Amino acid sequence: MRVARPGAVHLEYGQSTANRAMNQVFVTEHLVRFSHCDPAGIVYYPDFFDLQHAAMEDWFREGLQHPMPEMIRNERLGVPTVSIQCDFSKPLSMGDILRWEVRVQRLGRASVQLSYTGKKGDVQHLKIVQTIAFMDLDKQVAVPIPEALRPRIEAYLVG
Amino acid sequence: MRVARPGAVHLEYGQSTANRAMNQVFVTEHLVRFSHCDPAGIVYYPDFFDLQHAAMEDWFREGLQHPMPEMIRNERLGVPTVSIQCDFSKPLSMGDILRWEVRVQRLGRASVQLSYTGKKGDVQHLKIVQTIAFMDLDKQVAVPIPEALRPRIEAYLVG
Amino acid sequence: MRVARPGAVHLEYGQSTANRAMNQVFVTEHLVRFSHCDPAGIVYYPDFFDLQHAAMEDWFREGLQHPMPEMIRNERLGVPTVSIQCDFSKPLSMGDILRWEVRVQRLGRASVQLSYTGKKGDVQHLKIVQTIAFMDLDKQVAVPIPEALRPRIEAYLVG
Amino acid sequence: MRVARPGAVHLEYGQSTANRAMNQVFVTEHLVRFSHCDPAGIVYYPDFFDLQHAAMEDWFREGLQHPMPEMIRNERLGVPTVSIQCDFSKPLSMGDILRWEVRVQRLGRASVQLSYTGKKGDVQHLKIVQTIAFMDLDKQVAVPIPEALRPRIEAYLVG
Repeated sequence: MRVARPGAVHLEYGQSTANRAMNQVFVTEHLVRFSHCDPAGIVYYPDFFDLQHAAMEDWFREGLQHPMPEMIRNERLGVPTVSIQCDFSKPLSMGDILRWEVRVQRLGRASVQLSYTGKKGDVQHLKIVQTIAFMDLDKQVAVPIPEALRPRIEAYLVG
Repeated sequence: MRVARPGAVHLEYGQSTANRAMNQVFVTEHLVRFSHCDPAGIVYYPDFFDLQHAAMEDWFREGLQHPMPEMIRNERLGVPTVSIQCDFSKPLSMGDILRWEVRVQRLGRASVQLSYTGKKGDVQHLKIVQTIAFMDLDKQVAVPIPEALRPRIEAYLVG
Repeated sequence: MRVARPGAVHLEYGQSTANRAMNQVFVTEHLVRFSHCDPAGIVYYPDFFDLQHAAMEDWFREGLQHPMPEMIRNERLGVPTVSIQCDFSKPLSMGDILRWEVRVQRLGRASVQLSYTGKKGDVQHLKIVQTIAFMDLDKQVAVPIPEALRPRIEAYLVG
Repeated sequence: MRVARPGAVHLEYGQSTANRAMNQVFVTEHLVRFSHCDPAGIVYYPDFFDLQHAAMEDWFREGLQHPMPEMIRNERLGVPTVSIQCDFSKPLSMGDILRWEVRVQRLGRASVQLSYTGKKGDVQHLKIVQTIAFMDLDKQVAVPIPEALRPRIEAYLVG
């Protein structure tokens, strides 16, 4: 087990808030790396979507305790993106820590609308809203959110 | 206008429609490659934004006759994305030809709203709407669209 | 041989040399895009491997007339990389045309060693040597190069 | 400060071994994500080089206590790759933890040869050997390794 080292920069972990209740916010942080940045020295926006996908993976693994790799391989369930929207207010540069706050905005029978607020310190730099749908990967059809997963997702629903 | 060469696969080129007038549509095609596809065998959506950025580069280079690399290096002008939105209706897989139709939806003093319709054959698979702003890269402030460029952009404005 | 069309920028196409014989060289060109470049303004080296993979895909599709997407989907054959080596002599920047020359250096029972010389104009900027092996994707075992494909690969063997 | 949670998966941190001496090994771990994997479900090799670059960044930040973003921005020093070589022995899939062991194999006046052993558990899956050179980013010429940095790099030299 890793022991926390004071003063260290912790990266790419995911972390759920303490108690299971409504209105939870899932927080995860990613280091902005050299490879995310363009010739202007700031994050190339397609890479923000890659980082946001990583935040969703962190949420599934640690927030929902339902890791995507096993869900895809064993349950043959995927969560393709139906639509996504992003407002960029401030750029980020290499070395910055991007802090994501993940919330569930709407919960349908087979779909979930998520918001991802991207902050540096306490300042919002971008906000992404994404709608995903649960899909049977073999039959390629939308399926209801699994019963076992629904209450865990609901815990992150904005009240 | 591009002349088709029998038997050749044409990829990643950009092409403006024939005559300079209002309501022009810029068309460019990209091959969906192995690297764009995820473990489900379809395009990973952050890569659609990378391909859309390539379509914007093609439009600047061939549609506007104003290549981005020189604009960035010599004029020190950039076009950061203010907001972007995408609806995905059908997936794309490796080997598909993604045909982009680029149009100008709105034209401001310093900003341009573009739409990118992504088709396979005649069928729409996705649509992206993006707002870019012209920026002085050294002063990091928004600047008006250069006079020489404005009429060329206007040619693609939806009437 | 491909005839240059004045004024057109040719990108991302693949092209075999004219006659089928030994010692053929497969040539394909890729545009260096904004997204390939790092905060120093030059190609981020992992992206050279992505471009080299694209050159291999071009070679399969146009040089060997055996497109990888169909080979993977229908024949369930893949070509994982066993080893790869790259020497970088000069950088490339956005807007450059990267011209790949692809040759077969060695041909085994189940493996092929390829060289990719990356040029800008007539000047060599990088050289990659890659060994791939043919693999049955379902059984996950190495398999001999398909009989139909071997003479086509042999045509590119350095004599 | 982050509190270590037992049983949690810790990702993307870098960590130096305890005491400063010769023969140190720098260890850092990265989560293999969905986005790193190709339609065959395994890591697309160009992404291994992206992950290896991240390991180098981790080493600069935590092993050498000399973060690359500041080095590039303030000292205007870069470390372009002169050559790189990789042997792939076993694939990795999404959800795997890739453990890098970073060592200095050779130390020149202006260049460093590094080895990166990539493991899953105790089993080696790949090995990369990379030569980097220190470069003045403004003058674009090779420069000697900074005096302050040399002993810190030497600590990782294989004896």
